[in-house]
Amino acid sequence: MIRRKPIWVKEAIEKVMERKKLGEIEWVSINESDNRFLGEPLHADHDVPPFNRSPYDGFAIRSKDTMNASSTNPVKFEVIDDIGAGQVSLLTLGPQQAIRIMTGAAIPKGADCVIMLELVKEDMIESKKIITIKRKVKTGENISFQGEDTKKGELLIDKGNIVTPGIKALLATFGYSSVPVIKKPLIGVIATGSELLNVEDELEPGKIRNSNAYMIHSQILRSGALFKKYDQQVDEIHSLYSEIKNALDECDYVITTGGVSVGDFDYLPEIYRRLGAEVLFNKIAMRPGSVTTVAQINGQLLFGLSGNPSACFVGFELYVRPIIRYWLHSKRPYLRNAKATLFSDFLKPNPFNRFVRSKVNYMNNEIFVEPVGLDKSNVVTSLAWADCLMVLPGGTRGYKKGDIVDILLLEDQTGSDVPWIEEQKFSKL
Amino acid sequence: MIRRKPIWVKEAIEKVMERKKLGEIEWVSINESDNRFLGEPLHADHDVPPFNRSPYDGFAIRSKDTMNASSTNPVKFEVIDDIGAGQVSLLTLGPQQAIRIMTGAAIPKGADCVIMLELVKEDMIESKKIITIKRKVKTGENISFQGEDTKKGELLIDKGNIVTPGIKALLATFGYSSVPVIKKPLIGVIATGSELLNVEDELEPGKIRNSNAYMIHSQILRSGALFKKYDQQVDEIHSLYSEIKNALDECDYVITTGGVSVGDFDYLPEIYRRLGAEVLFNKIAMRPGSVTTVAQINGQLLFGLSGNPSACFVGFELYVRPIIRYWLHSKRPYLRNAKATLFSDFLKPNPFNRFVRSKVNYMNNEIFVEPVGLDKSNVVTSLAWADCLMVLPGGTRGYKKGDIVDILLLEDQTGSDVPWIEEQKFSKL
Repeated sequence: MIRRKPIWVKEAIEKVMERKKLGEIEWVSINESDNRFLGEPLHADHDVPPFNRSPYDGFAIRSKDTMNASSTNPVKFEVIDDIGAGQVSLLTLGPQQAIRIMTGAAIPKGADCVIMLELVKEDMIESKKIITIKRKVKTGENISFQGEDTKKGELLIDKGNIVTPGIKALLATFGYSSVPVIKKPLIGVIATGSELLNVEDELEPGKIRNSNAYMIHSQILRSGALFKKYDQQVDEIHSLYSEIKNALDECDYVITTGGVSVGDFDYLPEIYRRLGAEVLFNKIAMRPGSVTTVAQINGQLLFGLSGNPSACFVGFELYVRPIIRYWLHSKRPYLRNAKATLFSDFLKPNPFNRFVRSKVNYMNNEIFVEPVGLDKSNVVTSLAWADCLMVLPGGTRGYKKGDIVDILLLEDQTGSDVPWIEEQKFSKL
Repeated sequence: MIRRKPIWVKEAIEKVMERKKLGEIEWVSINESDNRFLGEPLHADHDVPPFNRSPYDGFAIRSKDTMNASSTNPVKFEVIDDIGAGQVSLLTLGPQQAIRIMTGAAIPKGADCVIMLELVKEDMIESKKIITIKRKVKTGENISFQGEDTKKGELLIDKGNIVTPGIKALLATFGYSSVPVIKKPLIGVIATGSELLNVEDELEPGKIRNSNAYMIHSQILRSGALFKKYDQQVDEIHSLYSEIKNALDECDYVITTGGVSVGDFDYLPEIYRRLGAEVLFNKIAMRPGSVTTVAQINGQLLFGLSGNPSACFVGFELYVRPIIRYWLHSKRPYLRNAKATLFSDFLKPNPFNRFVRSKVNYMNNEIFVEPVGLDKSNVVTSLAWADCLMVLPGGTRGYKKGDIVDILLLEDQTGSDVPWIEEQKFSKL
């Protein structure tokens, strides 16, 4: 049996993040860029708008020709051209001339303002198209000027941001038919435990289906990485050793689940020794997940998560997710945190830091949180309901409805630049 | 020119949702089920735990044999078997016998409690394995009883929920190697406008790159549907008509962007007539997106979104997203809403309902919101920064820092059962 000296959650996160690495860039089609992390800052390749343009349907004119226009002194203009969006007039406006213009079309030469369609009267006089204007129009009125939104070369958005519909629109506007994104890290997963059946298997006495490998697969995808499953191992040391070695060769990070209990069937400590791995920690002062182990071999991390589904889930989110997000160049690799008002009592004392599967809710401008279901560490059903983890510090005697607690949001993509342990500043991405 | 009578946002949403439809089920591998919407309620195919099991490494014993055990009266047991996880002992415990048992293993016959490894002393006496116990153990102590988490047949989670890592764990636990999910609706998108260049094109005078088709592609994927792009149309009525007809034949819903301005180059009203489509509305009292049009042909919806990127974005989220989410059997098809404290002044008066691209932030247990960038409707760059829309009702004179406003969360997957217009009740999924 090996000795386990518990360390604090903060220290465990730090020990993992000391070994963080940045991923490399690959180029993908804009059509494949959704939810990928930008590998380079994006810059404007042209002014926006790219030319002076009309924000409305109307007539481009010269403001000085309207100087004396009023309801008692209507002024007439000859319409000399008619341009749709995407067209450019080849003519230059002279005195008392107008060019009909559609929303988004370029302002023609000679014009310095636009009057909206609704404000003019259109007539045909002696087969000439004439408009009548009854008000002054100022220089620059109803013109969207070149570069007023964005100047060519301007930084649009920094690397490490995830591609959303809004960012996709930027990418298209600025001609990124190919997008520089960070290559996803490959995470190998080995679920150990001779009690584990495959999902398609019928139940057998003493056995349960392997849910952890499927759950972690989803967590890996949600965090932005790629998943590789290694064959479920019987608890046999030689094959487990060679499978882990194989995974370490093929993947950027490796996760094992199970086989980290205190009993004597646990081969992982021996495998760490054979690999020459340095165990960073093998016990954390937290529930669930106290036996979470992380080891490093030549800078590569090997995460030993608990075989217990809830402990496995929490271990992934606290220790694996930030290392993946940092790899993806995110400046906010940690779970987004907030404070929330407890919506119901949680009277259990918390000898250790406790991560309670919970649900967040908004009422008025206040954030509320409520635990979901029982909080036994083997209750897989409550995982399905949780969208956040409530963090209750060790040494506390239970909490009452109305108390303020820390929460970590599981379904958020924004993240946080520091773990919840330190206070968050209000800041933009 | 056609007449446009504006209707309220609430009425527009209702008119669209009157035509809502439910999608059908398809079965996919559990490995392909992430982010899909469940097509059937999930039930437990067995009790959890499936058998009485040990939550710890320890020794299974009979509680009555410990009745007189104490620190002054240590009691000895003979260890007759040693079972790992997944194993079942073939023996039945007799008086003063113990079976060594690993976490998760089935409680052997005859035993009614477990004592943890750490609380016993192990010795070899006359080649027999002996343990010594110095305390009483109660009947049922350290046993996770069959079905105490979930009973066979119990409803686990309802249809219409999106598959998260927690739900994936449930699916695996209960043997769903194939998962019933809702077939994604296919959304056809036709971006009209002769000013539009492809993303790979060099800029030309008077033209801009087509960002809307790419942005909507992302919005469609985020909402859970499939995207089909139709060739960008020059503003030529015959080809546009046949392309829209084609899209209506091939897709569940069709979106056009652009071509809905008040000018005379807009062929869409004529195309609606030729299609025999009923125009549900063609103007909404909102900014941006006032010219959003929705028509129906034999119950099929044709969304005419503005060519303006921000108006197009908002139109999709308010009117298209809920119809997609309802199709996916979501009971919460609308954008999740909350109230938030304004973090900075927004002093512009709001003659119409205004949807301001904004960013949400959490400080303490309070929700804050701040507009991002300028809020001109042509400012594509601010779309990239927004993670929510701030809703400012028409007829209001501007808002100050500290005021409470409605927000709609863009990156949330939980949704809401009613639009923000009605008050939300605190409820679980």
